[in-house]
Amino acid sequence: MNLQALDRRIAELRLDGYIQYAASSFTANMYYLTAFLTADPFLFLRSNNKSLLVVSGMERKRAASSSFVDEVRSRDDYLQGSRRVETENATAGLIASVLSADHIKRVGVDDAFPIGLADALRRMGYDVQPLSGLIEQQRKVKSARELKLIQEVQHACETALDSAIDVLRRSKTVDEELHYSGATLTSERLKTLIGCSLIRQACSAADTIASSGKDSALPHVAGTGPIKAHSSIVLDIFPQSVESRYRSDMARTVARGEPQNELFEMYEAVLHAQQVAFNTLKAGITGAQVHAAVEDHFRQMGFHTDLKKGYGFIHSTGHGVGLDVHELPFLSQKGDTLEPGNVVTVEPGLYYPEIGGVRLEDVVVITRSGNKSITRFEKKLVI
Amino acid sequence: MNLQALDRRIAELRLDGYIQYAASSFTANMYYLTAFLTADPFLFLRSNNKSLLVVSGMERKRAASSSFVDEVRSRDDYLQGSRRVETENATAGLIASVLSADHIKRVGVDDAFPIGLADALRRMGYDVQPLSGLIEQQRKVKSARELKLIQEVQHACETALDSAIDVLRRSKTVDEELHYSGATLTSERLKTLIGCSLIRQACSAADTIASSGKDSALPHVAGTGPIKAHSSIVLDIFPQSVESRYRSDMARTVARGEPQNELFEMYEAVLHAQQVAFNTLKAGITGAQVHAAVEDHFRQMGFHTDLKKGYGFIHSTGHGVGLDVHELPFLSQKGDTLEPGNVVTVEPGLYYPEIGGVRLEDVVVITRSGNKSITRFEKKLVI
Repeated sequence: MNLQALDRRIAELRLDGYIQYAASSFTANMYYLTAFLTADPFLFLRSNNKSLLVVSGMERKRAASSSFVDEVRSRDDYLQGSRRVETENATAGLIASVLSADHIKRVGVDDAFPIGLADALRRMGYDVQPLSGLIEQQRKVKSARELKLIQEVQHACETALDSAIDVLRRSKTVDEELHYSGATLTSERLKTLIGCSLIRQACSAADTIASSGKDSALPHVAGTGPIKAHSSIVLDIFPQSVESRYRSDMARTVARGEPQNELFEMYEAVLHAQQVAFNTLKAGITGAQVHAAVEDHFRQMGFHTDLKKGYGFIHSTGHGVGLDVHELPFLSQKGDTLEPGNVVTVEPGLYYPEIGGVRLEDVVVITRSGNKSITRFEKKLVI
Repeated sequence: MNLQALDRRIAELRLDGYIQYAASSFTANMYYLTAFLTADPFLFLRSNNKSLLVVSGMERKRAASSSFVDEVRSRDDYLQGSRRVETENATAGLIASVLSADHIKRVGVDDAFPIGLADALRRMGYDVQPLSGLIEQQRKVKSARELKLIQEVQHACETALDSAIDVLRRSKTVDEELHYSGATLTSERLKTLIGCSLIRQACSAADTIASSGKDSALPHVAGTGPIKAHSSIVLDIFPQSVESRYRSDMARTVARGEPQNELFEMYEAVLHAQQVAFNTLKAGITGAQVHAAVEDHFRQMGFHTDLKKGYGFIHSTGHGVGLDVHELPFLSQKGDTLEPGNVVTVEPGLYYPEIGGVRLEDVVVITRSGNKSITRFEKKLVI
């Protein structure tokens, strides 16, 4: 972790330091800054170009061995004796005792810093200034190491998806549903299959999507019940590595048994929309331009969108992926200029309540001259 | 969801309403208030005893069908026309346009509300007041429905743990390590086994602990490499139901192949410590009293604790469990008075670097006269 940008910002704003108080298991910035993983909140302090963690006594040794910070102390060091600061908010008291030990009065925090703590510190005379999006901006540009970690998760995605596609290929259409090894093939069975494959690859996978038929017309419906034949089946997987905490994200749409013509047309249009994005994506272009190009494409192909009624191309073209599944930069109306090292999904989709949904999602790395896909999985509607 | 306490607090403080802006997948309060699950932040507004969600256009239908709020609107409704509020912070602009449409000026928020948003709203003239711990206090007391959901996850825990114990029982000691079906039995294999069992039961399980030997002396080390024979093996599982989002939490310590005498003594002391807690736990008692009783017990049994050096009984006796794995009430130094319907873990442990760790963790429900365990799994050191 290179904290130069943070140190520069602290100096520019004449702050004494920067603090975070969060649980790194749930707050990507905290994990990014510390490389120490825990489900309980702890304190990170950056000041004088040095990093300090203050954790529970039980976690001190583990934090010292896993984190790259300069120093790890136990919160017990501050809860007794002359260092202790008494106040109505125990956490604010702990933070104040840490700050006062280093004569720190003015601190930067993330936009997401809790207002309860900030107000308590302000009442105690501390100047608490949100540094809007500072860490998020840095997280946007991936290092070679981060890229490799995302690729590893993407590889796990594809292995897991492969096992689901394999089961779909071996399933039979019985009336309008799919059957596999003697029983109805359900969304639940597909999600279990994908989940176990990911677990075996040391990834966790909550909220996998395996929806079919009209359910697939709502992009974030996870799917329940029998998988429909002659219809679109949307599989969307976004696991996280248990070890590295990095993520990837991919989606494929398939059909088992010949579907209606409209679905083929939607599929072709979405496939082309991806190509439009791939041809546009490079450093210097904004995410908004890419999204507009994809919107234009769908319009030209005659696919209508109504956001209020919820049909057509109703979500953005893509989003950054890294420690969070949705992070900067965005390929949407509000998308900023892309830089080399950005990692984004390209996931155009079309959704019509009477037909279903089609979404294809790959992950690409932005380069100076274009982009490079890290997703290799085949694209084929009828399997 | 009974929002009477929230409505009362809004009235008492003469606020016009209460807002949350968060992603319910990662913010338990948001899921608790809305029953709508998404990985992207959205707005919840409570005012005039009614609840409103403002979500992305793509999510409107899904939110309307899954949430119990009174009304769901699309953020697109506010981003155009006369309702639109222009400001440097787009999210604050959206919130301001929602609030101004209902003539709301004074709002309560959670302690965890992001400072960036709160400051932006305050600069726009809104009064933003953190209502410390209001929703968390309500979440402490579980309804019959919530209790049933936690029990279901606990059942999944026990099925998963059973499969791991079964493999341990069938493993062989080869030198100082365990072997199973022709290969070294590793922490990774045990965690995969537990994870797949949980996935099959529609639970997700990140960060399962399966540590052995000296690794187990650090309570939150997840474990890597071969499982040691003649030594403590700590298995700690805290899954979440994919559907209900509730959690449970359990731990067992076992040994395969006769361990050293000290481990038996530690195990007996931890088993007794649980009994001390079970005998003390009831409504009206504080979590601090329970924790002190367990500390006393270990002291009387001659087990020394040094928080700085990190050995002995170095964590709290327990914590609430529900939508979060660690929530109120706490059985620790800062633990408040317990109420009927609280659900807490009872997980005393002893940790010595030269020997390893022992932890036993059950979940109990607090009643008027005592407590009732929802954990049934056997306790036996040598298996």
